[in-house]
Amino acid sequence: MELHILEHSLKVASIEKEGIEICTHGLIKLAFLASKTRCKFFSLTETPEDYTIIVDEEGFKGEGLSLIVPACFQASGALISVFTCATPSVTLELSVYLNISVFFFFSWVIFRLQVRERDLPMVMHTLSSEFTLFRVVNGETVAAHNLGITNGFVKPKLVPRPIIHPLSSPSNMFCVTSLDPDTLPSVATLLMDVMFYSGGIVVIQSHFRLFPNNVLFTSASGELWKMVRIGGQPLGFDECGIVAQISEPLATADIPAYYISTFKFDHALVPEENIQSVIRALRTESTAAQ
Amino acid sequence: MELHILEHSLKVASIEKEGIEICTHGLIKLAFLASKTRCKFFSLTETPEDYTIIVDEEGFKGEGLSLIVPACFQASGALISVFTCATPSVTLELSVYLNISVFFFFSWVIFRLQVRERDLPMVMHTLSSEFTLFRVVNGETVAAHNLGITNGFVKPKLVPRPIIHPLSSPSNMFCVTSLDPDTLPSVATLLMDVMFYSGGIVVIQSHFRLFPNNVLFTSASGELWKMVRIGGQPLGFDECGIVAQISEPLATADIPAYYISTFKFDHALVPEENIQSVIRALRTESTAAQ
Repeated sequence: MELHILEHSLKVASIEKEGIEICTHGLIKLAFLASKTRCKFFSLTETPEDYTIIVDEEGFKGEGLSLIVPACFQASGALISVFTCATPSVTLELSVYLNISVFFFFSWVIFRLQVRERDLPMVMHTLSSEFTLFRVVNGETVAAHNLGITNGFVKPKLVPRPIIHPLSSPSNMFCVTSLDPDTLPSVATLLMDVMFYSGGIVVIQSHFRLFPNNVLFTSASGELWKMVRIGGQPLGFDECGIVAQISEPLATADIPAYYISTFKFDHALVPEENIQSVIRALRTESTAAQ
Repeated sequence: MELHILEHSLKVASIEKEGIEICTHGLIKLAFLASKTRCKFFSLTETPEDYTIIVDEEGFKGEGLSLIVPACFQASGALISVFTCATPSVTLELSVYLNISVFFFFSWVIFRLQVRERDLPMVMHTLSSEFTLFRVVNGETVAAHNLGITNGFVKPKLVPRPIIHPLSSPSNMFCVTSLDPDTLPSVATLLMDVMFYSGGIVVIQSHFRLFPNNVLFTSASGELWKMVRIGGQPLGFDECGIVAQISEPLATADIPAYYISTFKFDHALVPEENIQSVIRALRTESTAAQ
């Protein structure tokens, strides 16, 4: 399997619900007017707690967000992209290989994990034993050199990973979809409405021309997803293994999941019809932790 | 000819170019998400000097603009709407009848003048001798009663009205067009781009369901207009007769004009092919003032 390490450094920032108004000017430009900005990657996730934005440095500085979003709420990282249909086993493999804090978010045909920039050489070393690594340099995809830097972490055999954070599942349903960038203008007012004026939960990810495969697929099945939120208190950026705790039992039960990290919490989207078995499986792991 | 006095009190406010970012959240809601707001009238005019917004009190307070836009840059007024194709002679008639400060702005099939609320009874008395006046009360159009209040101003016979403010005409051309509100979403990203991210000069007017005739027409001829700006220093809100000074010579020369007042200056749009004769006609009046 191939992993692509992209050349853009990303910022993760949290914007309070009440603070979104002063960021609207920059966020609308990033989300809807790609041709006016040099930003190559932008993601916005709205939860009841906050807005999480993930944006490359060009976008962060260029649109004045660096001046508005308080500096203490930022984290930097590099982006690793996996071009595959996301399956629980792939998530699991990546989770257990990385004994460092990672930031996971899925889009339709790719999924991405974000690691701290200083952890990147170590991550590459750890992953190189099982994955083919590529690096994007000045827009060209080249084979990535393994620098042999390790944190001494050895891939564990099946060790128990009890779930240590409380879980909750809201009653609402989620729809995961995707659209061609050319179609974006026709739904712009609708998206602006859900982004800034309606409350609720929404995830917007624009990756513009960042990925070689820019043909996106739209779900025709119209399936709905339910969410499991991981964490009672904000999780922070230092803890390892949270993704693995959730993805292992789901992989064992053969349940697909979309994993979305935000600034404060992690979220797993699972197919609506699986929610009861997901809760059963995860509750067993939670009990094991006590 | 009929004049309709609408029931909404309007605010005129000026937003500095650098200040537009913090107003984007409210302005986008007013311009593109009419169903989310109780605002019935919204107009935005961008010039090189500033943004002028004209909005009813619901929109001004509801979208938080009353907190953002400095109070000293606001003026209140009532709206009089004339349902007719705007012609120079109509502009002239209205201009010379009103010896008070008015705020003129045109849209495609109607034109509107805004007068201070305290001047309204006097304006109605003055206009009632030549126009049929209607008033909109709780959404119903009813005959307006003339309260017999006058400022003692008598319609002048042909008195000279020399132009006392300096004129300038930028080299750019203008397009005047109109679209059905249902079409708005399809051009939203384009309009947001010219409104907030491109500089230049743009006038956006949304009157939602305020006017009984909500069928708008689009120019098929694609004719272009040039602009004459009136004023070297900001004109203020107290001076009378500025519209008449400009509209009289244009009416005499039978040249149609779109008249647009902004917070700082007045602007007349005239057909591109007439610009030389307009400048000649107005220069004669300017010379007369010296």
